[in-house]
Amino acid sequence: LAMAEKISDISEFGLIQRIRRARRAPNRNMILGIGDDAAAFRLSPGCVGLATTDTLLQGVHFDLRYCSYADIGWKAMAANLSDIAAMGGRPLLALISLTLTGSQRMEDIVQLYSGMRALAARYRVAIAGGDIVGGREFSLTLTVLGEGQEDNLGRRSGARPGDAVLVTGALGDSAAGLELLQAKGLFYRKAGMIPRDQAREARLLKKQLRPEPRIIEAQALARAVTLHGMIDISDGLSSELWHLSRESRAAIIVDQGALPIGSQAVKISRLLGKDPLNYCLHGGEEYELLFTLASKDLSKAGKALKKIGATYSLIGQVAAGRGVWLVDAGGRMSPLEDRGYKHRPS
Amino acid sequence: LAMAEKISDISEFGLIQRIRRARRAPNRNMILGIGDDAAAFRLSPGCVGLATTDTLLQGVHFDLRYCSYADIGWKAMAANLSDIAAMGGRPLLALISLTLTGSQRMEDIVQLYSGMRALAARYRVAIAGGDIVGGREFSLTLTVLGEGQEDNLGRRSGARPGDAVLVTGALGDSAAGLELLQAKGLFYRKAGMIPRDQAREARLLKKQLRPEPRIIEAQALARAVTLHGMIDISDGLSSELWHLSRESRAAIIVDQGALPIGSQAVKISRLLGKDPLNYCLHGGEEYELLFTLASKDLSKAGKALKKIGATYSLIGQVAAGRGVWLVDAGGRMSPLEDRGYKHRPS
Repeated sequence: LAMAEKISDISEFGLIQRIRRARRAPNRNMILGIGDDAAAFRLSPGCVGLATTDTLLQGVHFDLRYCSYADIGWKAMAANLSDIAAMGGRPLLALISLTLTGSQRMEDIVQLYSGMRALAARYRVAIAGGDIVGGREFSLTLTVLGEGQEDNLGRRSGARPGDAVLVTGALGDSAAGLELLQAKGLFYRKAGMIPRDQAREARLLKKQLRPEPRIIEAQALARAVTLHGMIDISDGLSSELWHLSRESRAAIIVDQGALPIGSQAVKISRLLGKDPLNYCLHGGEEYELLFTLASKDLSKAGKALKKIGATYSLIGQVAAGRGVWLVDAGGRMSPLEDRGYKHRPS
Repeated sequence: LAMAEKISDISEFGLIQRIRRARRAPNRNMILGIGDDAAAFRLSPGCVGLATTDTLLQGVHFDLRYCSYADIGWKAMAANLSDIAAMGGRPLLALISLTLTGSQRMEDIVQLYSGMRALAARYRVAIAGGDIVGGREFSLTLTVLGEGQEDNLGRRSGARPGDAVLVTGALGDSAAGLELLQAKGLFYRKAGMIPRDQAREARLLKKQLRPEPRIIEAQALARAVTLHGMIDISDGLSSELWHLSRESRAAIIVDQGALPIGSQAVKISRLLGKDPLNYCLHGGEEYELLFTLASKDLSKAGKALKKIGATYSLIGQVAAGRGVWLVDAGGRMSPLEDRGYKHRPS
């Protein structure tokens, strides 16, 4: 019966009690979690606090036709953890504000929290409080607090002429996977159909539905070298390169041949007759890290990243000047269009 | 022309630039504000962090017929600052997540921020970041971070048998003011009509539209004495007494004759033929502090509060047992109904 229980039938108090019971042992930074006027936490000695917030709306940031409530929870958590990673930080706790419409079942919200908790638990992030209100549009706002070293924060304004430009992982799989799903109108996950293709489907979807924030990578870098420019790729590489360039008041020159195009993006491009470079440059929701380093730190950073099994690519350099420039195989330099991924109501 | 500019015509980037330009010098705890992946801040030596979040929805938590965008901004900030006060803490920074519908004008959002900023500036709270998304329902989610002494946090679970129960200020004015407005259908603020009554109207509305969080009072208490139970009155006195009682696993006995009923609540009760006690016990959105103290600390606390010009009342005591009890003028004790103020979509 609990499965069919509608949120409109249960009180906010009942829901909070249920969320509270399911919580795991909090991390060592937590003092007070859910249940008081505010959560209380301590920062590790010598650390400064980091804080970020993101709102996800149904029909804009996620589509329940091809993602589950657990997927939404995971992704909302990933987006915020990724922002902490992009400062070179370690996440500590999350506050979760939900707007429920009455069409969510209790089980949906339990699943939403299980998705958030699955990712939070990997990085010992405590779910420490929040708010639940009733409205006309289902949405969630996550705030994540973390900590970092004041003298070694990765900043959007930190890129310096002469720096090398790097990116973790491969790019384009997330956007290509989503586009294929939308193009083919495949909603396997809901229908449970076409089992032969499901394994492939799941792989396609993984980067889109269960992105992994680069927490471990960010901390390995922060320990190994002095961080310069750093940002996470949530709105597409081109858009984030422009942010770095503008905030750092420097030019960025990208070597097109060095871009790490994801293998799924390549395959899907063939299927759809598209250019894989577009997914790599302009696809959103990658949650990879784009960062710049003094060239003297390159080998140290490389060693630190290899030690934890992380993949990364050297994709360009920072120069005095303005703008973002792409150099193609023939050595021709052209301005890179700032064409970030935009969420649009469906 | 800027006055008529619609949010749908301007980019999120443009809006952020405008908000960013208007920011004041941040407080000394801020390291990085708006414009990076996360805000960065430091805690004062020996302090622990505090974090709280609240979502306000149009038509549920506010009504644009009788409050301005600046009022909404102020109130959203007040609700969150009040939660930090209720821990005995000091607020440091706010993150603001907005869902805009396209029917807000640029000027509305500027006003919303001016309301938030007006209150934030009083307590040196930095507006340090946030998120702006487009949706179908106008809402705002504020997260406020603060700091407090780990060994002197006011907790909902902190009330001890033998403690005195106190409350700051007077109660009932906020709920009575709102009810009068709703009953009379007066929307002076918008219409600019009936100037003779406007001054009175403004006074009625002040507690409802521009509540003052008890930051100064909370800090004076935290410096003077050991905090025990503490909570802010956002959902009405009866509801908060029950929270304290349940979380502290103790009984609370309230002396009806000692309750500080607001003067506006008394006047409006006469006008509407209602019982002022109801506004005082069950009216919401007071943002006063309800707290308990060891009786040996009473005079020290009283001196500290008087020194800053704060009003407060001793309204009862904590006892071994369960439940919340009201003792009337005749000495009769009856259970106090848990009838908190509930926000309902209008």
